[in-house]
Amino acid sequence: MDLELLFLGTAGAVPTVARNTSGLLLVRGGTRVLVDCGEGTQRQLMRSAGVRVDHIFLTHLHGDHYLGLPGLLKTMSLQGREGSLDIWGPPGLEELFNGSYRVFGRQLFALNLHEARPGVVTQIDGCRVIAARTEHGPPSLAYAFEEESRPGLFHPERAVALGVPPGPLFRQLQLGETVRGENGRLVEPEEVMDGRRPGRKIVISGDTRPTFNVIELARAATVLVHDATFSEEERERAVETRHSTAAEAAGVAALAGAGLLVLTHISSRHSRGELLAEASGVFASSVLPSDFDRLVVPYPDKGSPRFL
Amino acid sequence: MDLELLFLGTAGAVPTVARNTSGLLLVRGGTRVLVDCGEGTQRQLMRSAGVRVDHIFLTHLHGDHYLGLPGLLKTMSLQGREGSLDIWGPPGLEELFNGSYRVFGRQLFALNLHEARPGVVTQIDGCRVIAARTEHGPPSLAYAFEEESRPGLFHPERAVALGVPPGPLFRQLQLGETVRGENGRLVEPEEVMDGRRPGRKIVISGDTRPTFNVIELARAATVLVHDATFSEEERERAVETRHSTAAEAAGVAALAGAGLLVLTHISSRHSRGELLAEASGVFASSVLPSDFDRLVVPYPDKGSPRFL
Repeated sequence: MDLELLFLGTAGAVPTVARNTSGLLLVRGGTRVLVDCGEGTQRQLMRSAGVRVDHIFLTHLHGDHYLGLPGLLKTMSLQGREGSLDIWGPPGLEELFNGSYRVFGRQLFALNLHEARPGVVTQIDGCRVIAARTEHGPPSLAYAFEEESRPGLFHPERAVALGVPPGPLFRQLQLGETVRGENGRLVEPEEVMDGRRPGRKIVISGDTRPTFNVIELARAATVLVHDATFSEEERERAVETRHSTAAEAAGVAALAGAGLLVLTHISSRHSRGELLAEASGVFASSVLPSDFDRLVVPYPDKGSPRFL
Repeated sequence: MDLELLFLGTAGAVPTVARNTSGLLLVRGGTRVLVDCGEGTQRQLMRSAGVRVDHIFLTHLHGDHYLGLPGLLKTMSLQGREGSLDIWGPPGLEELFNGSYRVFGRQLFALNLHEARPGVVTQIDGCRVIAARTEHGPPSLAYAFEEESRPGLFHPERAVALGVPPGPLFRQLQLGETVRGENGRLVEPEEVMDGRRPGRKIVISGDTRPTFNVIELARAATVLVHDATFSEEERERAVETRHSTAAEAAGVAALAGAGLLVLTHISSRHSRGELLAEASGVFASSVLPSDFDRLVVPYPDKGSPRFL
């Protein structure tokens, strides 16, 4: 199943000409999940993948992470969306929508708001979504999108050697069932298949100070997308505003044993090169995407994440 | 004094890849006035004239005309704005801000909200701002920005012929004072100056059905920017949604005797050519700008409005 991250907005609280406020589209198979929705996200979608969105997750309720929602929901209504839409976010989500109903409007489709707690939040097409508390001031969450492990590779030549003829018995073995070969011998799936292969795990920190909760959540993640608003020179400011520096994001990735670190929430004061160099010094597999960059994430046994 | 209109957003309720939701920057001398502020307006400003704005006017309180405000105000705060900001809008403006204070946030500068009534709303650098009720459903206003008339041209050769020597007396005549020439004759300003010259008048309809209020407001306007969401083929839909067709906008411009009609609030269903042709058939001086187009508006005696 294809899995891709489309970076819709990689700026900090203030957008720039080149970077919009926060937004990330996770596309897995035919399902499209939007994580955060800063002002202008609907147009970033129109410019790239189109506005269809199946699920929305908000990491926290600061404007640069949700101000694009009212417009996106209005566009969905005007375009005749009929299917319901689920939005997950930290505690305060319902109060935000209900308190500011004038702004969020009334939708012509069912809108289901869920205030997520740490732990498994939901399951989407066999992919678990797990939330963890982060440290940013208001209630805030990181999310992991974690696939189930997949069966190991099947070796037909081993099955034939053990007396199992090609055909329906192959399928039974692949489904984990024990079968009897032509010579009467029982053949176990383990004899003809490799061990299960891990699925992919994408973790999105949202805005946060470095925290063990994210390290735990991102343990062996294929990709960790982490707040890297500042450089180490502005560490004090990072502490004050409860963001991370690029080096801190890299430290989190290293401690978690993540495969790839994606730096995001880039303050307009910093250049791409500066933050990327700082992170790479701590954690070599760091990248800093531009808006509209697409990161393809193959299964770990099939290759490494790469930008299209 | 230079006067320019910068079209920041010319789309209808749903933006497109090419057109953002409503926003128009009127720049007169060093003063920058924003009329409407759809989602994404701050970035449209960043991409063109920069985010500095001195005054804001909202035509009505539909999301596609104000959802860019929370983000713009936040950016102003983060960028250290100190001067107060006045926002004018129809009745309901204060309720919107106070009711949805979570969304609009708290500013680090003084924000003055004014609910405008029909008539003269305020005066900005000698330019009167006049509001008129429009017909769109919720309380809605059109705005005219009307300059004072300017003194007529001074003819120095006539003054000299009447015995007035070049020097301080010239200035007195230009200020409208009667002076005594070298031969003792009283010289009236009218003898050496042409009649007063009209200033410029820019009228912005906002979203509306065609209405006599706008025709009155736009009487002899230099430029009328008018709702032209639909074509005549969709007249019924225009009536239902309380917008105007391109031909209706042209009818308003013709009845008002406007100098130039600018079509805006273009529905994504329509092509530029189709709407422009429809309007031009009724009112020849019609234009349909793209986002970021700049219309320079000279004094009427100095030339016609033209796109840069």
